[in-house]
Amino acid sequence: MRIQIINPNNSLEMTASIRNSAILVASKETEIIAVCPALDQSVASIEGHYDEAVATVALLKLLQQGCDEDVDGHIIACFGDPGLHAARELVHAPVIGIAEAAFHVATLVATKFTIITTLSRTKIIAEHLLHQYGFAHKCARIRCIDLPVLSLEYDENHCYQIMRQQCLDAKRLDGIGAIVLGCGGMSKMAQQLSDEISLPVIDGVTAAVKLIEGLSGLGMKTSKWGDYDYPRLK
Amino acid sequence: MRIQIINPNNSLEMTASIRNSAILVASKETEIIAVCPALDQSVASIEGHYDEAVATVALLKLLQQGCDEDVDGHIIACFGDPGLHAARELVHAPVIGIAEAAFHVATLVATKFTIITTLSRTKIIAEHLLHQYGFAHKCARIRCIDLPVLSLEYDENHCYQIMRQQCLDAKRLDGIGAIVLGCGGMSKMAQQLSDEISLPVIDGVTAAVKLIEGLSGLGMKTSKWGDYDYPRLK
Amino acid sequence: MRIQIINPNNSLEMTASIRNSAILVASKETEIIAVCPALDQSVASIEGHYDEAVATVALLKLLQQGCDEDVDGHIIACFGDPGLHAARELVHAPVIGIAEAAFHVATLVATKFTIITTLSRTKIIAEHLLHQYGFAHKCARIRCIDLPVLSLEYDENHCYQIMRQQCLDAKRLDGIGAIVLGCGGMSKMAQQLSDEISLPVIDGVTAAVKLIEGLSGLGMKTSKWGDYDYPRLK
Amino acid sequence: MRIQIINPNNSLEMTASIRNSAILVASKETEIIAVCPALDQSVASIEGHYDEAVATVALLKLLQQGCDEDVDGHIIACFGDPGLHAARELVHAPVIGIAEAAFHVATLVATKFTIITTLSRTKIIAEHLLHQYGFAHKCARIRCIDLPVLSLEYDENHCYQIMRQQCLDAKRLDGIGAIVLGCGGMSKMAQQLSDEISLPVIDGVTAAVKLIEGLSGLGMKTSKWGDYDYPRLK
Amino acid sequence: MRIQIINPNNSLEMTASIRNSAILVASKETEIIAVCPALDQSVASIEGHYDEAVATVALLKLLQQGCDEDVDGHIIACFGDPGLHAARELVHAPVIGIAEAAFHVATLVATKFTIITTLSRTKIIAEHLLHQYGFAHKCARIRCIDLPVLSLEYDENHCYQIMRQQCLDAKRLDGIGAIVLGCGGMSKMAQQLSDEISLPVIDGVTAAVKLIEGLSGLGMKTSKWGDYDYPRLK
Amino acid sequence: MRIQIINPNNSLEMTASIRNSAILVASKETEIIAVCPALDQSVASIEGHYDEAVATVALLKLLQQGCDEDVDGHIIACFGDPGLHAARELVHAPVIGIAEAAFHVATLVATKFTIITTLSRTKIIAEHLLHQYGFAHKCARIRCIDLPVLSLEYDENHCYQIMRQQCLDAKRLDGIGAIVLGCGGMSKMAQQLSDEISLPVIDGVTAAVKLIEGLSGLGMKTSKWGDYDYPRLK
Repeated sequence: MRIQIINPNNSLEMTASIRNSAILVASKETEIIAVCPALDQSVASIEGHYDEAVATVALLKLLQQGCDEDVDGHIIACFGDPGLHAARELVHAPVIGIAEAAFHVATLVATKFTIITTLSRTKIIAEHLLHQYGFAHKCARIRCIDLPVLSLEYDENHCYQIMRQQCLDAKRLDGIGAIVLGCGGMSKMAQQLSDEISLPVIDGVTAAVKLIEGLSGLGMKTSKWGDYDYPRLK
Repeated sequence: MRIQIINPNNSLEMTASIRNSAILVASKETEIIAVCPALDQSVASIEGHYDEAVATVALLKLLQQGCDEDVDGHIIACFGDPGLHAARELVHAPVIGIAEAAFHVATLVATKFTIITTLSRTKIIAEHLLHQYGFAHKCARIRCIDLPVLSLEYDENHCYQIMRQQCLDAKRLDGIGAIVLGCGGMSKMAQQLSDEISLPVIDGVTAAVKLIEGLSGLGMKTSKWGDYDYPRLK
Repeated sequence: MRIQIINPNNSLEMTASIRNSAILVASKETEIIAVCPALDQSVASIEGHYDEAVATVALLKLLQQGCDEDVDGHIIACFGDPGLHAARELVHAPVIGIAEAAFHVATLVATKFTIITTLSRTKIIAEHLLHQYGFAHKCARIRCIDLPVLSLEYDENHCYQIMRQQCLDAKRLDGIGAIVLGCGGMSKMAQQLSDEISLPVIDGVTAAVKLIEGLSGLGMKTSKWGDYDYPRLK
Repeated sequence: MRIQIINPNNSLEMTASIRNSAILVASKETEIIAVCPALDQSVASIEGHYDEAVATVALLKLLQQGCDEDVDGHIIACFGDPGLHAARELVHAPVIGIAEAAFHVATLVATKFTIITTLSRTKIIAEHLLHQYGFAHKCARIRCIDLPVLSLEYDENHCYQIMRQQCLDAKRLDGIGAIVLGCGGMSKMAQQLSDEISLPVIDGVTAAVKLIEGLSGLGMKTSKWGDYDYPRLK
Repeated sequence: MRIQIINPNNSLEMTASIRNSAILVASKETEIIAVCPALDQSVASIEGHYDEAVATVALLKLLQQGCDEDVDGHIIACFGDPGLHAARELVHAPVIGIAEAAFHVATLVATKFTIITTLSRTKIIAEHLLHQYGFAHKCARIRCIDLPVLSLEYDENHCYQIMRQQCLDAKRLDGIGAIVLGCGGMSKMAQQLSDEISLPVIDGVTAAVKLIEGLSGLGMKTSKWGDYDYPRLK
Repeated sequence: MRIQIINPNNSLEMTASIRNSAILVASKETEIIAVCPALDQSVASIEGHYDEAVATVALLKLLQQGCDEDVDGHIIACFGDPGLHAARELVHAPVIGIAEAAFHVATLVATKFTIITTLSRTKIIAEHLLHQYGFAHKCARIRCIDLPVLSLEYDENHCYQIMRQQCLDAKRLDGIGAIVLGCGGMSKMAQQLSDEISLPVIDGVTAAVKLIEGLSGLGMKTSKWGDYDYPRLK
């Protein structure tokens, strides 16, 4: 099977890092196709609602391309799950956002989780998702490292140290059993953090890969009856 | 003061009808500037999440233009309030969506309301908004006329009859005190429906005009502290 | 148009200060009629449920007088919105409480707000309102200055300093974009606080004036169908 | 021990009928003191928020008298629990409303209940209580007989037949295990309904008597720390 | 009347202490029958979901014995209310868990309460109960003494001092009016704590005794219509 | 990898049918070990809380055996997810209940779902799970075929016809995009129903197999930090 992972920002480094994470967990039979928009089609990083809105259109174009190439599933690799409902209208194959993927997995291994994300201003996006999906009471706290998304690429070591400290604080103070990483760019740190902290640290990218593989194994596609029917022709 | 009303679909008829509704309630001092995207920039009507995503980018460009022209407030004239949070990041002047405007006004004159909207598949958009805004328990029911948005333009009389019947049913059966019209294109019917049904029938376009005028009179602008700060430069 | 503002406690100073605030934002066409009960008809300040119950009867008498004088709208100028539903039964013109007015306005300019009120024991009243209206998840925190309501009149400077500090703390710590003032007597401080703190500081008195003007401009009155029908004659 | 039951409307018939119900379940050691306001102090029946507001002041005066006479507990015998929080401020002895009493008892014997009340317009009062108390998800439905409160006195047989039918419908259709009677005037019908319908039919008056006796047996009084502290002297 | 109190762990000391508490508040007419499983039938203390599952089967056997002996009501004397719904299916007499009993009583005397329980890992059990019963918004905080359940027996004085401090902290910091003791083994400390702290301190064992007596006085039994019908024979 | 599927009732037919469903979707590398309790260890079918309580102890013994045999994951194949939290305490490998599995998968392919289950009395169990997990607002309706669980084995064709009709009704009336089968014994019907109804019909058994495989592929185990720590030794 082939899974298209769309990083909706246009950072090639982050796209590569997301691809690497995905390949590490994908089944042998699964081909990972990681894409991102051209430089003039989206934003360098998604750090608010405006960035999301701009990136969503680029994302949907890439999604349509993936659909035309007949991939078996799509992943939206940005923690705000931008364009998720629109994407499910556009294609029949399953579509999963990395925020929802991480939330689903977290609730299967722990009663509560803490999210560690980048900038404080993006907390509201995670809160809206938790509320809409129904996981608000499972999330004990959203912690921020207060560094821009792209610092995860150009200042990786510094970010890691801050995240490690936040994970330790979460483990000690938040009454949680798992940690959810709140950015696609953090994917590469999940395994090391989990090992050092001795706690399940859940990265939505890898979580989404396994969920898509699972849906595919069930023959389960996005329902085209009702709310997720194809966009109406005018 | 000048209020920019953005109809995010590209129907000139609907834009004109929205402008007319707005002018009828606007203060003498208020200038209404109603705009919609060019034909190649958006969709003919917004009837799902995909349509919303596409229209939002066009909407945000028009919003930026309005901001450059120094308008005093912006209205997003589509019942899904597409791009609302993004718009509030982009500009400092107040921004109001017509769904939220209608909900706010309805809760000031009745304990519960019914929404009457177009297609069943758009119910989920209204439900997500009610849930996010906190008005879910005030909405007794969402009724659909199951006709496309644009039929409000080309088949107005037929639509009106169906809406009138839905209003009567809502009044009799839903235990409500007010009706909210669930589409910008229904704006023109609000007064006649209200008169015939003897119930407050709330149109979000006119509601938003008065709310924006009110915010302006309070000197109240979108908070740029925290979640609605300007989009970050990369 | 004429708006009746009822301060349900019998403090003439507070009534005068509320009138002043209202006049500052009212349209030129709007006449503000601020009233309060006679000394033997209500309490000096409303600082709990018992005070509310006593004041409500006095308030409803004044409301009926306003109705007899054919005012175009009524404002209940106490942050617990005492008697709001009763008032909407009694008259046809729109009635707005200053708590709900402030909440509505706050959610139009920020994703979250903090309330700053007087005594800790009144927090429960605000919490019940937030819960009933649907705004609980928009309120990050309720802060108290722990001074009696009337100290806002006789010890204004001291109160202001404490409130200013609470505002600064809220801005720094609460993750909010706006502040709601939790007492009619704080109305006079809103502008200065907003200027000093550089944050929207929302006073329900002025918010209610503009909302009533807006409802009036829409021709929107309290629905007399169903829950807000006139009290039944026995 | 002595329990004061306050019927906040001024119907002597209803007060007598409430007293009778209470006496039937009270312990031998318990003296029931049932009172209602004088004719010029309250309303003949409570069928809306306005009636509640007026009756509450009369109720609080009677409550204070009961307190002066050193009763051991107070019951507010109107299904809207008018003035409940105010009453708890005013006195130290426990105070229970018949709506909350019925809800508490119902959830101890069934997973869900249906309320049967008088007029449709009073449903909103019950809904607000369910929401505030936390029992909304336990109430499957609120059914109305659409007859005025006082018809329970002057047209008892007719009312009984309609209530019996509503009970049967609730048992068959609502997926419930118990029925809550939504008016103090229905108290006298509880036993017969329960016998005929073969379902727990819960009357708040008797429920409140046993709850007050229970609190008394525990030495439990209204907490005067915090929210229910005595009203502040001005 | 006869009330069967089942301590589902097999500690004879705790069972005796629970019996003592119950007897202190029971009516003269009430006989208290306190039982616990044999040593090989349950666990020494219930400190998690696994312990609950094991203890529940032993509890249900004892419940059936009580039913065979025709007791008038049953109390499940473990703060997680293990097997509550199963027990209500099995017998007709009323069954009350001590957690729900304490919550019900607490909400009748205070607007909010804090729970003080033993180990942090049992918080999730209380949270699930609060959520299911509808009392989540009434519980300000769950505090833990982080000592095993049985230390309440063998190290009573040390436990008491820690609990006393937690009570004082709760009174000062949590904005509450009452404290709920989160373990059957704490029952014996309720009165002393309440006296020393000057706050209602609610123990579920005694609360349940009075609630069962109350239900019995009302002739109210578990509804056998619907969800709590007897287990189906296969 | 090896997955242990525990059918907590003692029906060999149902266990075999569950095994067949699981094998059809399992990866080639996955070995399915389906077990059920001995006849004297559990009940023939789980149709209420009492049945659940009895079956849970048997289930936990089988789970421990699976753990001793070092399986890589466990599935609780009963729609009430009995003993789920206890099981997660007992072992380190991931544990999934078929109700939660079905809910998670349903929300990934549709905005709303209807559950079709057996007896009306089991609805409350599903409702409690939806509430606890956070999916209550995603479930449009719970439909019942009102036939005992075991009729799915001995009267399969009749059951199928009734379920097919309920599915058709749900598709037409409930505003949903997917159907969740509310019993492990319905697993074998999922594919045919989905084909005939042209809607995703989700069976929790197969859903759980793929979720466990996914967790395993992520190296994700139940968190032993906090709430799901191993049961305490006494």
